[in-house]
Amino acid sequence: MTDDTLYAAVPLRWLGPIRIGGNVMTGEQEVPLATYETTLWPSVRRGAHVSTLVDDGITATLVDDRMARSVLFEAEDAAAALAAARRIEADIAGLQAVVAETSRFAHLLEVNHQIVGNLLFLRFEFSTGDASGHNMVTLASDKLMAHILGADRSLSYGSISGNYCTDKKASAVNGILGRGKNVVTEILIPEEILRRRLRTSAQKMADLNVRKNLIGGAVAGSLRSANAHYANMLLGFYLATGQDAANIVEGSQGFTHGEARGDDLYFSCTLPNLIVGTVGNGKGLDFVSENLARLGCAEDREPGENARRLAALCAATVLCGELSLMAAQTNPGELMAAHLQFERKSR
Amino acid sequence: MTDDTLYAAVPLRWLGPIRIGGNVMTGEQEVPLATYETTLWPSVRRGAHVSTLVDDGITATLVDDRMARSVLFEAEDAAAALAAARRIEADIAGLQAVVAETSRFAHLLEVNHQIVGNLLFLRFEFSTGDASGHNMVTLASDKLMAHILGADRSLSYGSISGNYCTDKKASAVNGILGRGKNVVTEILIPEEILRRRLRTSAQKMADLNVRKNLIGGAVAGSLRSANAHYANMLLGFYLATGQDAANIVEGSQGFTHGEARGDDLYFSCTLPNLIVGTVGNGKGLDFVSENLARLGCAEDREPGENARRLAALCAATVLCGELSLMAAQTNPGELMAAHLQFERKSR
Amino acid sequence: MTDDTLYAAVPLRWLGPIRIGGNVMTGEQEVPLATYETTLWPSVRRGAHVSTLVDDGITATLVDDRMARSVLFEAEDAAAALAAARRIEADIAGLQAVVAETSRFAHLLEVNHQIVGNLLFLRFEFSTGDASGHNMVTLASDKLMAHILGADRSLSYGSISGNYCTDKKASAVNGILGRGKNVVTEILIPEEILRRRLRTSAQKMADLNVRKNLIGGAVAGSLRSANAHYANMLLGFYLATGQDAANIVEGSQGFTHGEARGDDLYFSCTLPNLIVGTVGNGKGLDFVSENLARLGCAEDREPGENARRLAALCAATVLCGELSLMAAQTNPGELMAAHLQFERKSR
Amino acid sequence: MTDDTLYAAVPLRWLGPIRIGGNVMTGEQEVPLATYETTLWPSVRRGAHVSTLVDDGITATLVDDRMARSVLFEAEDAAAALAAARRIEADIAGLQAVVAETSRFAHLLEVNHQIVGNLLFLRFEFSTGDASGHNMVTLASDKLMAHILGADRSLSYGSISGNYCTDKKASAVNGILGRGKNVVTEILIPEEILRRRLRTSAQKMADLNVRKNLIGGAVAGSLRSANAHYANMLLGFYLATGQDAANIVEGSQGFTHGEARGDDLYFSCTLPNLIVGTVGNGKGLDFVSENLARLGCAEDREPGENARRLAALCAATVLCGELSLMAAQTNPGELMAAHLQFERKSR
Repeated sequence: MTDDTLYAAVPLRWLGPIRIGGNVMTGEQEVPLATYETTLWPSVRRGAHVSTLVDDGITATLVDDRMARSVLFEAEDAAAALAAARRIEADIAGLQAVVAETSRFAHLLEVNHQIVGNLLFLRFEFSTGDASGHNMVTLASDKLMAHILGADRSLSYGSISGNYCTDKKASAVNGILGRGKNVVTEILIPEEILRRRLRTSAQKMADLNVRKNLIGGAVAGSLRSANAHYANMLLGFYLATGQDAANIVEGSQGFTHGEARGDDLYFSCTLPNLIVGTVGNGKGLDFVSENLARLGCAEDREPGENARRLAALCAATVLCGELSLMAAQTNPGELMAAHLQFERKSR
Repeated sequence: MTDDTLYAAVPLRWLGPIRIGGNVMTGEQEVPLATYETTLWPSVRRGAHVSTLVDDGITATLVDDRMARSVLFEAEDAAAALAAARRIEADIAGLQAVVAETSRFAHLLEVNHQIVGNLLFLRFEFSTGDASGHNMVTLASDKLMAHILGADRSLSYGSISGNYCTDKKASAVNGILGRGKNVVTEILIPEEILRRRLRTSAQKMADLNVRKNLIGGAVAGSLRSANAHYANMLLGFYLATGQDAANIVEGSQGFTHGEARGDDLYFSCTLPNLIVGTVGNGKGLDFVSENLARLGCAEDREPGENARRLAALCAATVLCGELSLMAAQTNPGELMAAHLQFERKSR
Repeated sequence: MTDDTLYAAVPLRWLGPIRIGGNVMTGEQEVPLATYETTLWPSVRRGAHVSTLVDDGITATLVDDRMARSVLFEAEDAAAALAAARRIEADIAGLQAVVAETSRFAHLLEVNHQIVGNLLFLRFEFSTGDASGHNMVTLASDKLMAHILGADRSLSYGSISGNYCTDKKASAVNGILGRGKNVVTEILIPEEILRRRLRTSAQKMADLNVRKNLIGGAVAGSLRSANAHYANMLLGFYLATGQDAANIVEGSQGFTHGEARGDDLYFSCTLPNLIVGTVGNGKGLDFVSENLARLGCAEDREPGENARRLAALCAATVLCGELSLMAAQTNPGELMAAHLQFERKSR
Repeated sequence: MTDDTLYAAVPLRWLGPIRIGGNVMTGEQEVPLATYETTLWPSVRRGAHVSTLVDDGITATLVDDRMARSVLFEAEDAAAALAAARRIEADIAGLQAVVAETSRFAHLLEVNHQIVGNLLFLRFEFSTGDASGHNMVTLASDKLMAHILGADRSLSYGSISGNYCTDKKASAVNGILGRGKNVVTEILIPEEILRRRLRTSAQKMADLNVRKNLIGGAVAGSLRSANAHYANMLLGFYLATGQDAANIVEGSQGFTHGEARGDDLYFSCTLPNLIVGTVGNGKGLDFVSENLARLGCAEDREPGENARRLAALCAATVLCGELSLMAAQTNPGELMAAHLQFERKSR
C-alpha cells in the first residue's frame, strides 16, 4: 500500500473542550483519515468546520472503558455449571492474581456468566491500559482457563473464545455489558450556523434522525444501532492510527440523538463499543506513530489516558461526519450534488 | 501509508474448482491480505494450505447478487403511503427506464416497501455490473425520487437514504432481502488431514461450531451472525483489493456450518452480504489494480463476472481463516501458543 | 376457567372509519378484552373514549395479509441446494396446484429461500381466507414437501418447520417478508382533547415516544419493536376472540410513531405481524362466537374479509391502550396513581 | 370465558427430581394447561410420559431470579447524566431504604445505567418474593424516581418506564442482565425410549436442533431465541395458573440444546426470562388457586420459594412439549398425521 497521494492522512479541525473522565482538553486538533472513499474528506471537514464556529465545540464524555473475552466450559449438566460459576465468581481476588501475572496493565474488573444447558460461558472484563487489549485479554483468559480447569474437575475445556465476548460481530452484549470505550460526543449548534453552513434547521435534523436512523433502523431489523454512517469515519480514523479496523463491526453500533432546543440543535453521537489503543500491533509504523504524536496521544500519562484521549478524538470525528451527512440528507438532491462536485474537483 | 514491510500483500494458495453461476474455475490462486494484525497471515495460510491438499479444494457458490438503496417519503397517512407504494410498484418498467438513464450498468431488479404510520420506505434493488455500486444506486435513487415526487403529489421528500438499505450497519434486512453478493464456500476435509494438519477432528469441529458460533452467538444477542472472525479476513482482503472496507460491518454477518460426515469434516462459510467490486473508488491505485489483475478479476468478461469472481475468492479466503482459527480453538492453549510463536518469529 | 366476574369481556367504544382494503367501515364498536390484569380495562377505555371525541376516529389501513411456513431440506452441497431452489421456484404454478388440493382457501402467493451451507430453507407464503392459517399452511407445506421430495432426488427431508417461518418467536423475517396481517392504525388528536382528557401535549407525547420507545427500545437491544405495551392489548383481544394467543410473541413487534402537527398529535401504531382469524380452533366456543358476531366479523363476506375486519379492530384496540399508557407516562406519578385508584375501586 | 369442556386444565405427569437452588423435589406432578389449541395436550403429554420412564426424570436448575424496571431521566448533557448515574449508584443503601418502605417483599439488588446523548436510563433490579413483581417494581421505581428527582436538580423526569426494562417486548437486555426466573430443564433419554416412544434417535434430534432451531433461527433474524415452540406451553401454563400471559413475549426467548451421548440423548431447555408468580393479580380466581395448590405452590415457605417451584414446573412443561414436537419433526409427515389423528378423536 504505497499510494500516498490518494489515501494519505487528511487534516480536520475542531475546538474542544473534550472531557475525558475529569480532565478537560481544549483546543483544535488535526485529525487524519485514511480511506479509498475520498468523498468522506470534504464531508467530515464540513462538520469539523462547524465545530470551530461553535463556542463550546464538541464535548466528549467517557462513560465506560473495558475489554472483554468470554471463555466456554462444558459441564455434566446445568447444576454443575452453576455451581462452578458460583465458585469461580466467589474468588475474584484469586482470578485477579492470575491475571496480574500475565501483564502489568491487565486488571480483571468483572466476571459474568451465561448458562445454556450444560454449557458455561464466562465473560471476563478487564482494564487494559493504553492497549485495545485483544491479545492481552486472550493471554489472561488462557491463564484463567488453565487455573480454573486445574482447580475444578467438574468442568472441561470448551473454547478460549465462546463468542459471548463478542469480538468483531454484531451483537447486543457489548453495548449492554461493555466492551471498548463508551463515549458520547455532543455539540450545540445555533440556528444561524445550521442555516448558513449546513443548509438545514434544528427541526429538520431532529425529524430526519427519528425517521431515518431510529424508525428506518428499527424497520431494517437493526440491533442497538441508529445512525447514518459511523462505520465510514471509524474506518478512516482506525486505518490512520494503526487500529485493528475489523472492530468497526461493533464500533458502528451506536446512537445518533438530536433534538431542537428552540431553533438551535442539540446533536449527539453515542458510541458504546469504541475499541482503540495507542500501543500494540500497528502502532510502530512510522505514519501511525507520527499521527498518534500529532493527536497528543503519545504523551507520558497514566496508563489508559492516551487511549481514552484517542477514543474521544475518534468519537468527535464520527460526530463531524454524521452531522454533515445528516444535514445533506435533509435536502433533496444535495448528497448526490456534493458527491459529483467533489469528484469533478478531484480530477 | 507507506510501510510495505509490515502490511504489504501476502500470498496464499488454494485449489479450485470455484463455481460461479454455471462456470467452474479451477486452479490455485495467490490472494493478498493487508492488515496490521499480522498473525492473521499464518492462520489464513494454514487453512489455505489445507485446501491444496484436498481433492476438490474449496467450492464457491453464488446464491444472489444485488445492491440496494432505500429512500424515505412522508405521506399524509398510511392509506396515502400505501396507495403511493402500489402505484409506484405497478410501474416497474417506468422506474427501470429512469434508472437506465443514469448508468448503462445499473438495472432495477425489485422494489420493496415498508410503511410505518405515515412514512413510506422504498427499497430499490439493482444489479450494478462490476461495481460494488454504492454511488451508482445513490445516483439512480436520486433520480427515482425526483421522478416519483414529480408524479405523485401525495408524497414529500423524507431522505435519500432511509436506513432500510442498510448500508454499513448491522441489520437483518440485508440478509433477508439481499444486498451484495450472497456466497457459500465449502470444503470436505478427510480425517487424516484434519488430524495431521489441523490437530483436530470432525466431531470436535462440529461441536465447537454449535457451542461457540451458534449457541455462544445466540447468547450474545447476535443478529444473523454465527461465525468466529469473518471480519478479520474481510478487512485484509478488502484493503488489498481497493474495497470500501466499511462494508465489513454487514459482510461479517454470516454463518459457519460444519458437520461430521463419518470421520471427515464438511465445513462451510455462508456470506450473504458480501459487497465487493472491481471498478470504482480505490481501484485505480497501482497496488490495487495489480492485485485485481493477479486475481484474474481484471479480464474482459460480461459485466459483473469479474466482481463475482472476486467475491468467490474473498469468501474462499474467509473460509481458510475461519477453518484455521476454529481448529486452533478446539485445543486448549493452542491459539495463544500460535500467537506467541509467530510474534517471536517476526522479531 | 369459570370466573366470569373477573375476566369476562369488557365493552369499549370507538368511532370509525376503519378502512380495510378499499372498504370503509364507520361506526362505534364494543370490543371485548379478557385478562387477569384488570387495570388494562380502564386504560384502554380511556384511549377508546378519546377516539369517540375525534372527528375521524381511528383509521386502520391493511398493508399486507399472508401466512407463512418454512420447510427445511438437506442437499449434498450449496450448489445442489441452489439448483433445487431454482427448479422449485420456477414451477410456482405446479406448487399452487398442490396447495389447491389441500384446501379451497389456501393459495400459494410466494416462495422465498435461504441457503446456509448445504441446507435449503424454503419459505412458503399463502393467503388463508378467514383462518389465521397455522394448520392450513402446515398441511399445505406437508404436501409441498412430499411433492418436491418426489420430484427432486438431490434433496432429503430436513424438517416440516425450519424456523424461517417464524412461528411464535421473536425474529426479523416476519416483518420484512410478511406474516399475518400488516395493519397501521392512526388517530389525529386536537390539543384540547390531549390536554383535558389525556393530561398531556403533542410535544410531550412525541418526545416520550422517541426517548422511551425508539431510543429505549434500541438500547435494550429490541428487534423491530418500538412500543410501550402492544402485548397487553393483544393478549386481551386474542383471548376474548378465540385466537391462538401465543402469536402475541411476534404480534407485539411493532412501531408506535407520533408527531406534533402544530399543537395536535398525530399518533399511529404499526403492527406488521398481526395474526388473527375468524374460523378455526377456539372459534366454536360460545362466548367466542358471540364476540365475533358482535364485532361484525361473522358476516357473509368474501373469504378473508371477516378476518381482516377483526385485525383492524384488534389494531385499533392496541392504539387505544398504547395512547393511554403513553399519555400517563408523560406525567410523573400518574401511572402508579391510576393503578392504585383502580384497584381501590375494584375492591 | 366459561367453556370448561374445551379449555379446562389438563393433567400431565413427570418424575422429579426438580432441583431449585439447593433443594431437590422428587415425585410426579399433574400440570394444568389451558389453551384453545387442544392438539397441544397430547403433544405435551407424550413428552411428559417419556419423563416418567427415565430414571432421573426432568431436572430443573434455577440460575437466577430477579425483576426489573427501567426509568428514564433527562439531563443537560452526557456529562451531567454520567455524574448523576455515579452519585445514584454510589448510594445503593439509600435506594434500598426507599424500596424497603414500599413493600416488605421488594428488595433492590442492582442498578445498571445506559446513557444516550443527554438521556439517562436506570435499570433497577429487585427480588420480589412470590410475586412476578410488575406492580411491586413499578411502585418501588416510582418512589425511587421521586427520591432521586428530589435530591438531584440536574435531572428531570423522562418516564417511569424507559423500555430498558424490558417488559413484554422482544429484546436482548432481559437475558443478559436478567429479568424473571432463569431456569434450565434437562433430561437424559436412553436410546430405546427415543426409538420406541418418540420414533427418533439422538443424532436425529441433535441434528434437527442445530439445523432448525439454531441455524433456522439465526437465518430468520431471531434474537436470543433458538427453540421450536416454547410460547405454546408457556401460554397454556400461564393461563392455567393465573399469570400475566403477555410475558410469554420475553419468556419465549430461550435455547433448546441437545446432544448425542453415545446413542442416548441429552436434551435441555434454557428459559432465561421466565416471569411467574404465585401471588398477585389473577391468583384469587378459584381455578387458579386450586391449580397452584395442586402444584404444591401454595405452601408455607420462605418468600419466593413457591414462585421458584412454579417456574421449575413451568420450565419442565416446556421441555415436555419441546421434546415431543421436535421428535415429531424428525420424521416426514408425522406432525401432520398426529394433528389429524387427534382432531378426528376429538370429534
